[in-house]
Amino acid sequence: MSSRDEVLRRVRDALGGARGTHPAVPRGYARRLPATEAADVPALFGERVAENRAAVRHVGADELATAVAAALWGREAKQIVVPADLPFGWLAELDGVRAMADRPVIDVDALAAADGVVTGCAVAIARTGTVVLDGGPTQGRRALTLLPAYHLCVVQAEQIVGTVPEALERLDPSRPLIWISGPSAAYGAGTVPMAGAQGTDGMEGVHGPRHLEVLVVED
Amino acid sequence: MSSRDEVLRRVRDALGGARGTHPAVPRGYARRLPATEAADVPALFGERVAENRAAVRHVGADELATAVAAALWGREAKQIVVPADLPFGWLAELDGVRAMADRPVIDVDALAAADGVVTGCAVAIARTGTVVLDGGPTQGRRALTLLPAYHLCVVQAEQIVGTVPEALERLDPSRPLIWISGPSAAYGAGTVPMAGAQGTDGMEGVHGPRHLEVLVVED
Repeated sequence: MSSRDEVLRRVRDALGGARGTHPAVPRGYARRLPATEAADVPALFGERVAENRAAVRHVGADELATAVAAALWGREAKQIVVPADLPFGWLAELDGVRAMADRPVIDVDALAAADGVVTGCAVAIARTGTVVLDGGPTQGRRALTLLPAYHLCVVQAEQIVGTVPEALERLDPSRPLIWISGPSAAYGAGTVPMAGAQGTDGMEGVHGPRHLEVLVVED
Repeated sequence: MSSRDEVLRRVRDALGGARGTHPAVPRGYARRLPATEAADVPALFGERVAENRAAVRHVGADELATAVAAALWGREAKQIVVPADLPFGWLAELDGVRAMADRPVIDVDALAAADGVVTGCAVAIARTGTVVLDGGPTQGRRALTLLPAYHLCVVQAEQIVGTVPEALERLDPSRPLIWISGPSAAYGAGTVPMAGAQGTDGMEGVHGPRHLEVLVVED
């Protein structure tokens, strides 16, 4: 018997009867919201976004253009970038803010210099206050939402699901997904809220916009 | 035998052997373009639109915003109306032209006073130079495209089919369809081109915009 065989024999002996069997893992994940939270999913989403230190406002569809303009005026934005397929109606009330469509493609310097970006989203998750972009309609390419310092994201009420499993049911895993929970990608990646901007366990503005603002549109 | 029976008997006699049979109707309609015309469907569409006395331009996707602005400047348009979901990129180069989104809904007086409307379409037909709107994305409601005197319609190359049967295959007959062949709905409804605006057999600007301009977008 070689040393190798001897080692393997000892491993097998040590495993004993457990070898080939697996402990039962409970799979009863909560795939839906409990009834108490499911009653008003947009409201829950708004609360969780706010807890993630992002600004959030609920607006009617007819108020959206005014709300977009007000948010940009509030930031004193002069020059923003948008996906070329953003609905014109979202930007119809801009006054004194110049919007650049990303077609022809905006170069990186101009993206970084922009005061902000306005997009829609693919899906939003109430329980985690997360916005997910997949590069589909109204969302643009990745650089568009990662370079500007401020991201104003328009979420339609019907795009909001309760839980992460429900979001995954609506998403195509082969698309380039951006999950935004809180004001920055790094910030939202499993960290906890912190009091100041100098914390060590949650860095804002490293892997995405420093400021996220969400408009929830309900008819 | 009553008078009624007598009349019916005479009808039956007159019909004789033909009753219950139907003459054969040839159904070999041309449902596709002949190969000679199918080679460049967007080019054929452009030719036929021009023959219908509407202006037409072929542009690349990156040139669309400039082409839209140039068309509006050419009309000296100051105030236009658009569906709220028109892609922002189409209007990104407007300068000195104010676009009003139809959300909140624009009232009839403002629609009629507008210098024009910009929309997309549902499908376009090369053989007849027809643009079809069905109220879907980028097209807006009927009043939006019927009241203003000038209609600038953006047609993507992939929206153009060869023939009317092909268009019908793509359309939902339960939607409100507007078929535009030539500069006006009345004009295009089976009339022939005329030399002046005072003709009796083709009236422009009665049931729709007096002026139709088409931008064909090819990548």
